Amino acid sequence: MTRVTVWNEYRHERDEPKIRQVYPQGIHTAIKEALEPRFAVRTATLDEDADHGLSEDVLNNTDVLTWWGHMAHQEVDDRVVDRVRQRVLEGMGLVVLHSAHHSKVFRRLMGTTCNLKWREDGRHERIWVVNPAHPVARELPLWIDLPQEEMYGEIFDVPTPDELVFISWFPGGEVFRSGVGYYRGRGRIFYFRPGHEAFPTYYHPHVQTILRNAVAWAAPTLGPAPEFEWSPSLEPRAGDRG
Amino acid sequence: MTRVTVWNEYRHERDEPKIRQVYPQGIHTAIKEALEPRFAVRTATLDEDADHGLSEDVLNNTDVLTWWGHMAHQEVDDRVVDRVRQRVLEGMGLVVLHSAHHSKVFRRLMGTTCNLKWREDGRHERIWVVNPAHPVARELPLWIDLPQEEMYGEIFDVPTPDELVFISWFPGGEVFRSGVGYYRGRGRIFYFRPGHEAFPTYYHPHVQTILRNAVAWAAPTLGPAPEFEWSPSLEPRAGDRG
Amino acid sequence: MTRVTVWNEYRHERDEPKIRQVYPQGIHTAIKEALEPRFAVRTATLDEDADHGLSEDVLNNTDVLTWWGHMAHQEVDDRVVDRVRQRVLEGMGLVVLHSAHHSKVFRRLMGTTCNLKWREDGRHERIWVVNPAHPVARELPLWIDLPQEEMYGEIFDVPTPDELVFISWFPGGEVFRSGVGYYRGRGRIFYFRPGHEAFPTYYHPHVQTILRNAVAWAAPTLGPAPEFEWSPSLEPRAGDRG
Amino acid sequence: MTRVTVWNEYRHERDEPKIRQVYPQGIHTAIKEALEPRFAVRTATLDEDADHGLSEDVLNNTDVLTWWGHMAHQEVDDRVVDRVRQRVLEGMGLVVLHSAHHSKVFRRLMGTTCNLKWREDGRHERIWVVNPAHPVARELPLWIDLPQEEMYGEIFDVPTPDELVFISWFPGGEVFRSGVGYYRGRGRIFYFRPGHEAFPTYYHPHVQTILRNAVAWAAPTLGPAPEFEWSPSLEPRAGDRG
Repeated sequence: MTRVTVWNEYRHERDEPKIRQVYPQGIHTAIKEALEPRFAVRTATLDEDADHGLSEDVLNNTDVLTWWGHMAHQEVDDRVVDRVRQRVLEGMGLVVLHSAHHSKVFRRLMGTTCNLKWREDGRHERIWVVNPAHPVARELPLWIDLPQEEMYGEIFDVPTPDELVFISWFPGGEVFRSGVGYYRGRGRIFYFRPGHEAFPTYYHPHVQTILRNAVAWAAPTLGPAPEFEWSPSLEPRAGDRG
Repeated sequence: MTRVTVWNEYRHERDEPKIRQVYPQGIHTAIKEALEPRFAVRTATLDEDADHGLSEDVLNNTDVLTWWGHMAHQEVDDRVVDRVRQRVLEGMGLVVLHSAHHSKVFRRLMGTTCNLKWREDGRHERIWVVNPAHPVARELPLWIDLPQEEMYGEIFDVPTPDELVFISWFPGGEVFRSGVGYYRGRGRIFYFRPGHEAFPTYYHPHVQTILRNAVAWAAPTLGPAPEFEWSPSLEPRAGDRG
Repeated sequence: MTRVTVWNEYRHERDEPKIRQVYPQGIHTAIKEALEPRFAVRTATLDEDADHGLSEDVLNNTDVLTWWGHMAHQEVDDRVVDRVRQRVLEGMGLVVLHSAHHSKVFRRLMGTTCNLKWREDGRHERIWVVNPAHPVARELPLWIDLPQEEMYGEIFDVPTPDELVFISWFPGGEVFRSGVGYYRGRGRIFYFRPGHEAFPTYYHPHVQTILRNAVAWAAPTLGPAPEFEWSPSLEPRAGDRG
Repeated sequence: MTRVTVWNEYRHERDEPKIRQVYPQGIHTAIKEALEPRFAVRTATLDEDADHGLSEDVLNNTDVLTWWGHMAHQEVDDRVVDRVRQRVLEGMGLVVLHSAHHSKVFRRLMGTTCNLKWREDGRHERIWVVNPAHPVARELPLWIDLPQEEMYGEIFDVPTPDELVFISWFPGGEVFRSGVGYYRGRGRIFYFRPGHEAFPTYYHPHVQTILRNAVAWAAPTLGPAPEFEWSPSLEPRAGDRG
């Protein structure tokens, strides 16, 4: 069974009563409940210990890590960022959520600024499936309406997605590539846009389906581990017939 | 100088007074004027002769072909379709406009249905640049507003674009990948969504910039002509040092 | 359980004693045995009936179709080609093998010539994994040596692959993109290069792993079925909050 | 005229007589001469000043930067790395050569390790064009033979290339994606594999054509400069008809 670690900054929900009302036990708990029982899920949060709950041991026993952060990206220790990045390149899946577009981990792995336009107005978001053959679109309708979300608008300064699954529409006139997949090293990364802390997005049934699909897609593929080194000539010869 | 042939079905403008008012000399003339004097432009139309103006000689002297069609796709002779497709695979650029998503030429080259959703309501279209490094985005603003257009909505059943430059927003709640590029054989294809016959889209200055950019991008690159044949062993040997 | 139909032209093995020695019960039987018991597999061959074994009923009950053909591409009925293409666009997976690069089905779906260079010299092929995060690379080593194969060389005239998994090396000095994936409509297509009828390629353990991986990858994702039609305005309104 | 700055580490050629024999005035001078007179070229080297010749002023007046480095990647100042990366994201082209796959600049922009396999054996390299429609393949033959080069082998740990133009073949049995293009921010990056300091690769006429093609391709496109900020609603209204 795929082992998932749900990471959450967990500050808004503790410090702001209005947000706590939406996610009384934190965004991580809502995501954990969306992923269970299909996956074996644990959670980790920024302030739980010096490793933010992501010790080497935890990461070595994680197949897919999901990441939600917003106001405290800079407080994430670079040691932990390096560790997560290394594990992704070695094969661990990573699902990056909403404002974590600006997390150190995502920016390091993308190489670009990951900047975008935004407006926190709590209006409508409509998410269109543009690749119905993609595993992350499994069991979804053609579009999903979220009654209240924060707006993110293009240009989204990320590398060209290897896989583009969703495009969002906002009533203010904006569009956004809101579900994109990347191959990086031996691992896979999925970024999913919605999930502002003030709205109950992660309770939405279709959003929960997307979370499960994204985790399943990002799970390690067990392809060969690259060897990066001086290499002897491997020239096949006449005798190589067996 | 890049030699462009602007092809137009030229039926709406002849047969419908309301459309003729918008494009008195045909859509092809408006496009021609947008491309001149930067390119050497001629036009060709469906009914001008048995080849629809696209004889072998014309195509052999065309670097980039632009294509607008709508109501008479089925009347385009398969010989001409084969000829155009062959020329694209050999290196001629192709710029496919609006309702030509359903042209025989585009469907043959794409392999998919090229279907989409639509609504002819003459409302707003906003076109967002999503790849500001792409040559077709040259000298454009971040977005373009067309006050009246037909709506096309996802899912757009085309192959994954090799290059995604524009995404459109419509007030009815739809999005559309409205500027996409493809490499096919030795040639390049750009599809650009706007251009409903009832609205003066091809007179819009930014749309005209896009037409010029798309033609410049699709112009032949003069890469090597593939050889498809039985091939002797070309194994480099010790003597191959010169 | 994913239901697979293994299609084979089945001429070489019947008509040429040398080939029959390699695949006494046909290439389809070797592939079937490689896919069992993980998948529910049936076979179909060109000459078994007027539908080449691919009636509507068979295809409607097929999740993934694998296709091997070589000398008789032209004998495949266009009705069947249309039916297969339609099913792929609706969601059926397609795994195209070796000389089936020139099958009507693959060419129709690709839109290009699918031409390449070749040399039937029975020398070495080495297949390199270039994307270790891709599901089709699952449980493979970094490279695979096939002691005897036919050479296929670039330029391979296909659309830019959506996913490039393998690149082959040949001792004559050639390279080839030998494992490539495509999204088309609601379905997925994987092309895998090796499999000349004169060599026991489909008995090779790593090749069998690739066949299983490719079938698993191409299996239907159950994403939403596109609607292509006139569409009313779906503009979200103030009331759309539930 | 496109303004090019050719950057070179310039250590091997100064310190090792054998290398100096190949490039008496440094690799940068050979590259400069290959690019002239089509482009306006200046050079810059690691040790020329505290900015390695890449002051803000120089970079602000550079359209395309080419980069060759090998033994002293770690000596490149992080301030300069940040400056170059920033300029690329703002629109400056970057052409990364050979062992600069491990330069700080390239690794930062890619986000992956950029590792690979290698063997310095001075044997043959054959470079195949796999996309004849790509501008970097302009005026090249189908393949190019370099009699002596260092081997680089897959897996090349870079993001999936946005554009794959060349694949190399080596007699030891290896392949390599040796010409790849990336869009990043408002800029473009081309990586070209050959160019070991011990061999006269940059004097080879076809390699010089590739250098010119890559610079021309990477030149700024003058697309719109992204705005990343809080954004007011831009909802088109009934009055937006002009």
